[in-house]
Amino acid sequence: MKNKLDSILKQHNLDGLIALGGSAHNPAMYYLTNGASIGERSLFVKPRGRKGVLVVNAMERDEAGKSGLRVLDLHTIQVAALAGRPARVGTPARAQAQLLATILRQLGMTGRLALTGLQDAGFAAELVAQFNRGRFGSTIVYAPEVLSRAAVTKDAEEVARIKAVAAKTVAVVGDIQDFLGGHRAKDGVLVDKAGAPVTIGVVKARINLKLAEMGILDAEGGTIFAQGRDAGVPHSRGQADQALRLGETIVFDIFPAEPGGGYFYDFTRTWCLGYAPEPAQALYDDVRAIFDQVMGALKVNAPTSDYQRMTTDFFESRGHPTIASQPGTQEGYVHSLGHGIGLQVHEAPSLSVRSSERLTPGMVFTVEPGLYYPSRGLGVRLEDSVWLNPATKRFEVLAPYPLDLVVPVRKR
Amino acid sequence: MKNKLDSILKQHNLDGLIALGGSAHNPAMYYLTNGASIGERSLFVKPRGRKGVLVVNAMERDEAGKSGLRVLDLHTIQVAALAGRPARVGTPARAQAQLLATILRQLGMTGRLALTGLQDAGFAAELVAQFNRGRFGSTIVYAPEVLSRAAVTKDAEEVARIKAVAAKTVAVVGDIQDFLGGHRAKDGVLVDKAGAPVTIGVVKARINLKLAEMGILDAEGGTIFAQGRDAGVPHSRGQADQALRLGETIVFDIFPAEPGGGYFYDFTRTWCLGYAPEPAQALYDDVRAIFDQVMGALKVNAPTSDYQRMTTDFFESRGHPTIASQPGTQEGYVHSLGHGIGLQVHEAPSLSVRSSERLTPGMVFTVEPGLYYPSRGLGVRLEDSVWLNPATKRFEVLAPYPLDLVVPVRKR
Repeated sequence: MKNKLDSILKQHNLDGLIALGGSAHNPAMYYLTNGASIGERSLFVKPRGRKGVLVVNAMERDEAGKSGLRVLDLHTIQVAALAGRPARVGTPARAQAQLLATILRQLGMTGRLALTGLQDAGFAAELVAQFNRGRFGSTIVYAPEVLSRAAVTKDAEEVARIKAVAAKTVAVVGDIQDFLGGHRAKDGVLVDKAGAPVTIGVVKARINLKLAEMGILDAEGGTIFAQGRDAGVPHSRGQADQALRLGETIVFDIFPAEPGGGYFYDFTRTWCLGYAPEPAQALYDDVRAIFDQVMGALKVNAPTSDYQRMTTDFFESRGHPTIASQPGTQEGYVHSLGHGIGLQVHEAPSLSVRSSERLTPGMVFTVEPGLYYPSRGLGVRLEDSVWLNPATKRFEVLAPYPLDLVVPVRKR
Repeated sequence: MKNKLDSILKQHNLDGLIALGGSAHNPAMYYLTNGASIGERSLFVKPRGRKGVLVVNAMERDEAGKSGLRVLDLHTIQVAALAGRPARVGTPARAQAQLLATILRQLGMTGRLALTGLQDAGFAAELVAQFNRGRFGSTIVYAPEVLSRAAVTKDAEEVARIKAVAAKTVAVVGDIQDFLGGHRAKDGVLVDKAGAPVTIGVVKARINLKLAEMGILDAEGGTIFAQGRDAGVPHSRGQADQALRLGETIVFDIFPAEPGGGYFYDFTRTWCLGYAPEPAQALYDDVRAIFDQVMGALKVNAPTSDYQRMTTDFFESRGHPTIASQPGTQEGYVHSLGHGIGLQVHEAPSLSVRSSERLTPGMVFTVEPGLYYPSRGLGVRLEDSVWLNPATKRFEVLAPYPLDLVVPVRKR
């Protein structure tokens, strides 16, 4: 949680934290500035034990003020940074390093500093090299875990926001299920009143419209609605021009967010329209069995890796290849069991075999076992997101929704 | 244009280009992978004079294939990177450096390499430090302009996509104008049929819905619909709970994009509902005059800074403070005249006084003069986006739309 930042800085022997960039699609900056809507040239600086300071272009001052942080004017600091120097300070990275040094001097900040925020990788490398060469009394050191260790547990307000996105997400899923179930089939293909095939493109357009009605959006542009063979490739998005066919597995994985870089939800169901052929049902039954088993076995303080191992053990016992016995396999169980969600759709903790994390009160994470057989034309994944409620120590699914495989369609 | 990448690499004495990260909200990666929808652990590597190679998690292989690039499996390369080494290679940055080195070795790539793509700034700095310390036969050097110099001019397909977003944008603007004009006023406030005030929040919800209907979205979560005093602060988004008042300036600045990190458009009008009070009309007249003057004066190969100077000269002659005579002013003309649009809402070229760029065939950029007086409760900005058509050498507004200040409302 954000209120642990100072203790995490202390544990890492850090004197402060710097973040760069705008708040949109820059989770670190969004997090540290409490979601203020600020532009790409913004800087955040926080001395350990003191409140952060936000430096923005004056045009952004109203929105920056909503951060609750002290706001400084970028232009004023630029003038100070240039005082006594030639007007040209070399490359943009060098100018940025001098700007940072000026801010730190004004704040009386020195020592070992962590740096975060999304930046062009080449620019960031040069900025740090220039800064550390500048002998400003501070050094930027590599401390990748400061922010992720804070953000890995969510406070009440964060959970409330994720829950709100969750409720909207399943409302959209419900609408889509009703939409599909309201159609009839012809020659094994879902058709509309005029007899025209219902395509994945039509479904996706409806998803986006319903998300907008709810005030959330597919920020990553990546909603998965993939059937048959494509359902067997975990991150295939599905093909817009494809008609929906009865009896094929459809993986529907949706991960919308609040507009402007806010909180995500992550949710997957697998559907068969009309009926489930035996191989699809059998695959579903295996995924459902381990899904239920994991959900029932979640325990406070348990290593997250235990659940990945539980999943690979179960799938192996059912005769499926998994990445435990066949690293790199593209058939069977091919990914880790889950991941944290928050301002990123994928963040800590990782429910993978290499993770050393434990299930900690305040964590919000996905549980998403799946089985994939592209060569046989099918795949199944089920995913709910879970919050470990610090008050009750219970694991709560943030938005319960039926897990059924078959979506009946109209008879005529 | 993308087909100039090799010649730009050559001019910078670079042997190749590396890009990191997923394609969503990572313009460099989106650009280099032709918009393939790939996840955050992806890598792009391009030796000069050869086609780029894309390295992704196998789960992403279908989407990666849409890039048209050769696709390699991340897992296979990870195995190769670990061959003969202990299983743990230290920090994530060090592991990533060794992974990169392995890919470069497989591609037979050496020499001076540029690095781009959005990454956590601290991680990127450590990655480059580790890589350059690794003596892999290659060095990552600072070359910030490679990609922006390619992307500053757009090819025909890019312009077609921006134009499509532009047409949808003005369709949404038209809908909102009709929506507002379809209401009546009561006590100086716009009201609905039931007599309830129409708020900025209501308008913004409608904007997002209409964008979704058009298949585009407010990717930055930043649509500006700001009235009165807020219109006088260029990047104030407007206050959702505020009722729309007649006779106030409303700055409506909308910059939607294709879903998933695609092309942006950028467009601004200033409206007064019902009528324009004299101070608003006078301010508008000044902005409109220089807007028309600039649009009429755009010339192939002219320095972009000329137009910023033209604008500050004009506004000064009309008695407005500007950043030319009063750097840091927050009243009058407080920003530069425009910027490129593309996969970023702000990119090269800059129409500012410090820019050394020239108007070049293929550029797409905004022209957006404005005047701001928050202390007097008003602000005006007009913005169209322009393409310098390489075939005709003409400057084309990508989506013409009336510039009128007053939006009449229903009499009763």
